[in-house]
Amino acid sequence: MMTKAYGAQAGDLPLGPLDITRRAPGADDVQIDIAYCGICHSDLHQVRSEWAGTRYPCVPGHEIVGRVSATGRAVTGFAIGDLVGVGCLVDSCQQCEECDAGLENYCDQAVGTYNAPTPDAPGHTLGGYAERIVVHQRFVLRIRHPEAQLAAVAPLLCAGITTWSPLRHWRVGPGHTVGVVGIGGLGHMAIKLAHALGAHVVAFTTSEMKRAAATALGADAVVVSTNSSEMEAQARRFDFILDTVAAAHDLNPFFVLLKRDGTMALVGAPPTPHTAPSAFGFIMKRRSLAGSLIGGIPETQEMLDFCAERGIVADIELIRADQINAAYERMLKGDVKYRFVIDNASLRDQRTEDG
Amino acid sequence: MMTKAYGAQAGDLPLGPLDITRRAPGADDVQIDIAYCGICHSDLHQVRSEWAGTRYPCVPGHEIVGRVSATGRAVTGFAIGDLVGVGCLVDSCQQCEECDAGLENYCDQAVGTYNAPTPDAPGHTLGGYAERIVVHQRFVLRIRHPEAQLAAVAPLLCAGITTWSPLRHWRVGPGHTVGVVGIGGLGHMAIKLAHALGAHVVAFTTSEMKRAAATALGADAVVVSTNSSEMEAQARRFDFILDTVAAAHDLNPFFVLLKRDGTMALVGAPPTPHTAPSAFGFIMKRRSLAGSLIGGIPETQEMLDFCAERGIVADIELIRADQINAAYERMLKGDVKYRFVIDNASLRDQRTEDG
Repeated sequence: MMTKAYGAQAGDLPLGPLDITRRAPGADDVQIDIAYCGICHSDLHQVRSEWAGTRYPCVPGHEIVGRVSATGRAVTGFAIGDLVGVGCLVDSCQQCEECDAGLENYCDQAVGTYNAPTPDAPGHTLGGYAERIVVHQRFVLRIRHPEAQLAAVAPLLCAGITTWSPLRHWRVGPGHTVGVVGIGGLGHMAIKLAHALGAHVVAFTTSEMKRAAATALGADAVVVSTNSSEMEAQARRFDFILDTVAAAHDLNPFFVLLKRDGTMALVGAPPTPHTAPSAFGFIMKRRSLAGSLIGGIPETQEMLDFCAERGIVADIELIRADQINAAYERMLKGDVKYRFVIDNASLRDQRTEDG
Repeated sequence: MMTKAYGAQAGDLPLGPLDITRRAPGADDVQIDIAYCGICHSDLHQVRSEWAGTRYPCVPGHEIVGRVSATGRAVTGFAIGDLVGVGCLVDSCQQCEECDAGLENYCDQAVGTYNAPTPDAPGHTLGGYAERIVVHQRFVLRIRHPEAQLAAVAPLLCAGITTWSPLRHWRVGPGHTVGVVGIGGLGHMAIKLAHALGAHVVAFTTSEMKRAAATALGADAVVVSTNSSEMEAQARRFDFILDTVAAAHDLNPFFVLLKRDGTMALVGAPPTPHTAPSAFGFIMKRRSLAGSLIGGIPETQEMLDFCAERGIVADIELIRADQINAAYERMLKGDVKYRFVIDNASLRDQRTEDG
């Protein structure tokens, strides 16, 4: 089925309107009319070929929400009209140890929502900057938020689960002191979620300007990480620190703020390595440095349901598709509070260059 | 009480005979006539001032075994003649969260067996290269091995507990695949202990020559880490890897051998930082890099009892005190299988330079 989309034909070209095709729904497939799609920093890395192996045309987008518009005959959990979401994954082997554990995100054959090999045309997956998408039912999430919040739910599908999964895996809750490094798309969700999980949340930012904003998001305290006396006052206070910064930086000043047996988890993937903590930093308090990659499907549903119950959504700025290139430039400057979300209805009115 | 010892007056001088004093046993003290003391690589770092803050005269040694020769009036668990050991710690605050948890090793006021501030002359602690030592009963361990094994028990007090503590903390046991990087004083104990705990043990060495030796220690497989095809065959096989190498090296080739949720723990503290794993290495399989520092007193006793039951001791080469400087040179070349232990009786016959 011909589908209007927005993407790029090469890494050095801007994104523009494209016509793509989506497969007809198979037995296990759910076809979704996409209402909104969040813009993740990964979209920019991939479409601009800053990560290896970008396949063109590239249509990014893995924070997808919309309504079911068709279902295959074996689909049991979804009906036409249901509000649903799709995150970073659209398939996996569905039979390995990771998949059996509900951790499809760690499956060696996990299929990303864009840029992953697929039998469908054009041979690689195309993401959510599009009118519709067809996805195996296992990778479709139910959205229980009110429809009025739908645009602001979109970022939960990546920024939400990417921060929720480590917070849950390392059992963050009441009585814990949790640090969040970086207050951007991921960081602002981490603050909201850690706060809702009952932890004492400390936000770290390089900018004095973000102090009030972080407090408004739910941080119990804000530390300006470039202020060394402020940092030293936090020494050995933290059970867990979530580092959401995708640029390489020195991990040591944060790492030494962990208590004995504390963990600092990375969710950003910088193109160049971080300056790692010294061996003494690890050894002296049995600290751990870890990483976490998005999340599995069951925990994504858990997160969405938790957020629906608590009324938690992302803070967003809604844009039209023809504002995507400008939004990328603003995202690079950190000029967004805190996530751009595309109104996919804006795709319908566009004239495609090559369609 | 005057006590013959062996130590150094400066970082650039060889070790030689010294007369030191030990305090008279207080109410909670146990006085121990030292029979044997192991030589740890830390001894060399400290006495040669390769680590900051060495206080002189420096008497190293924290793998101490011997017999109780006096006890204070409040000592309940030890009697004259008992076989006992002392490891890396001789005191701590005894009242913080770490001490209450039996993790005196992580107490901020932990007092090292040598080079730590103390009210006793000369103002810093002096270690086990000496005829006797006086230690608070809390830091004295019971030895249940046969006396004939006593010299080979000495290295359990540092090399043993330093590897035992992380193996237990990360719950190594049957069904686990465990890697041990480096087959030296610590590594050879890690192989023995992980094997005895029921794990499938893979030893990593840079030397083809050590293959048979590692197998003899209990390794189920040996991988030469400089052989990239051998290394690649181990990808994603490991639940836990213990890195015992104290020299800076690239952690990446080992880190990617961990399964999802696997942990690599460092127990060596190199003077310069390791090359840290890439952020992708952490994120893609939720792997952790951690550290571990010796162990607490209760787990040290647990380890000693476990080893006594299983007949586990270190592989040692027994030397006289006047061979310590030569032993250091051989240790630097890796020319020891696997631990030098000083026969402290050899101290009694020496003429001290300044006593």
